[in-house]
Amino acid sequence: MNASDTRIAVDAMGGDRAPEEIVAGSLRAAEALHCRILLVGDSRRIGTLVARHPARGRIDVIDAGETVAMDEAPAAALRRGTATSMGKTIELLRDQTADAAFSAGNSGALLALATIRLRTVAGIARPAIATVWPARKGPLLLLDAGANVDCRPEWIAQFAIMGTAYAQGVLAIARPKVGLLSIGEEEKKGNALTEAAFALLSRAPIRFVGNVEGRDLLLGDVDVVVCDGFVGNVALKVAEGAAEYLFSSMRALAMASLRGKLGAAILRPMMGALRAKMDYREYGGAPLLGVRGVCLIGHGRTDALAVENACRTAARAIGQDVVGAIGGMVAESVASPSL
Amino acid sequence: MNASDTRIAVDAMGGDRAPEEIVAGSLRAAEALHCRILLVGDSRRIGTLVARHPARGRIDVIDAGETVAMDEAPAAALRRGTATSMGKTIELLRDQTADAAFSAGNSGALLALATIRLRTVAGIARPAIATVWPARKGPLLLLDAGANVDCRPEWIAQFAIMGTAYAQGVLAIARPKVGLLSIGEEEKKGNALTEAAFALLSRAPIRFVGNVEGRDLLLGDVDVVVCDGFVGNVALKVAEGAAEYLFSSMRALAMASLRGKLGAAILRPMMGALRAKMDYREYGGAPLLGVRGVCLIGHGRTDALAVENACRTAARAIGQDVVGAIGGMVAESVASPSL
Repeated sequence: MNASDTRIAVDAMGGDRAPEEIVAGSLRAAEALHCRILLVGDSRRIGTLVARHPARGRIDVIDAGETVAMDEAPAAALRRGTATSMGKTIELLRDQTADAAFSAGNSGALLALATIRLRTVAGIARPAIATVWPARKGPLLLLDAGANVDCRPEWIAQFAIMGTAYAQGVLAIARPKVGLLSIGEEEKKGNALTEAAFALLSRAPIRFVGNVEGRDLLLGDVDVVVCDGFVGNVALKVAEGAAEYLFSSMRALAMASLRGKLGAAILRPMMGALRAKMDYREYGGAPLLGVRGVCLIGHGRTDALAVENACRTAARAIGQDVVGAIGGMVAESVASPSL
Repeated sequence: MNASDTRIAVDAMGGDRAPEEIVAGSLRAAEALHCRILLVGDSRRIGTLVARHPARGRIDVIDAGETVAMDEAPAAALRRGTATSMGKTIELLRDQTADAAFSAGNSGALLALATIRLRTVAGIARPAIATVWPARKGPLLLLDAGANVDCRPEWIAQFAIMGTAYAQGVLAIARPKVGLLSIGEEEKKGNALTEAAFALLSRAPIRFVGNVEGRDLLLGDVDVVVCDGFVGNVALKVAEGAAEYLFSSMRALAMASLRGKLGAAILRPMMGALRAKMDYREYGGAPLLGVRGVCLIGHGRTDALAVENACRTAARAIGQDVVGAIGGMVAESVASPSL
């Protein structure tokens, strides 16, 4: 697919800073990626924000009068169908008007809408949220980061296939090494779920390297780490909390003395580079893998830069046909006599 | 109990740096805390290390000819009984020759020995490993950090009681706030285990404040966080990895330029203070809560400072009768009609 034919549906009303930042990021993405953006939501407000922008010719505004609230129950969002901007955004992907969908709104509602309306790829039981970590060795993909809080072992094996396809297509890692998040490197170090998943992963058509530990998410040399969504979400928030804690502790220490202030002023540009690397906006959105379509979930705090980067990720996933690759790998694993 | 009557049994042969660092730390602890240390292991080697030290009068050397290997199966360590330095150390606590036990050796073996030989406090199903986190608000206790990889909800409620007693006695927090580690603050945000544990915690004789998230381990304002041992161990290792990643990334960035080197040189003393705060040696050992006796597990890398701090922690737990307090609180919770 030619980049200029790529169409990304963006929920203009989702996230704490919608619609202003969402629209601004969409305009930047349309300009930078030469793609079309379908902005879904309050067409009058969106129209005002788009007007007179040089990239407005690449924008289609799709009206949806309602918005899914951040604390709304997923079932309620489902019932409202395409009346909401989020429901309509998913529908555009479902009916192939768009090639990808992005929303920074209520992530539980988005997960439910995408799972029910798009359905999963044949052979995939549950979609998973994948997040990219800025590991020492380069980008590392962790999944599931929160979609499935109680997993079956075979779902974990499916996550490994999904993660492998995504790492190949979007992160450009030829033969991704896959690790199982556990509490020791030996096969038997883990809980009932990881022990069962270990056996399945050993026979899956992926490059499984065994158990990895929490420290390997930033320091290890694997490319994809799989775990259940409860553990993955805790790990993600511990890491975010640790980064915030260390940066704020350093700032407080530095600001407490003249000497500290001087050192901090000298180091500021370098610290800025490190903070940027740890910034959620770097990758813009977390792909929801396993559904039939490229679908990305944004952080509630999503701003224009995050939207632009999410669209960049979406365009790459479309161009590399990650969804098709997941389907192909699942079919291969089902056909494999060892499974 | 008078400090000078306190007797701490220390496995002199456990850990990567045994026996030299273990003996050195024990001597420092005996001197600083005015307590007796029972050093268990190769009596000839220990004797040489203790000789002529001013604190040698506070040291008893207990011979044990064998050592539990770091990769030895717990069942094998159990079978060797008191022939090993670790087995003998636990035995000294069991027969009340010592008031506390510490080992930096094979932690799986220590867990098995302590559980089987000391047994659990009446009403406690499983012991848990507790770790102290240097949170922004002050020390925070996380348990279980790895003793129980597949937990029942009632064990989590028991961890909360054990953690409360320890936080009161050793961390001197009058009414510790207890949080349940989950993936959202609302009661229903979690997995099957946390939902069931939430209900039990709400009725337990503790100050339960609800669910907390991964970021709260360093940034929140709770005092005790409970979770199953798999999740707790992952969280601990993610945080350790994140700290190591950030410190090493900063060092690399700073060392890449003259400007960076200058800034780093100016900030070095402050960074040192922060690193020290994050240092596992600060608390020396992780208490194994729920067994009949004060028992601490050391990090494999334990050095003299860590041993000294572990003995300090042990002395406080003995002085405050943390084991008795756990027993009292469990009895209260069993007597309570609401449970």
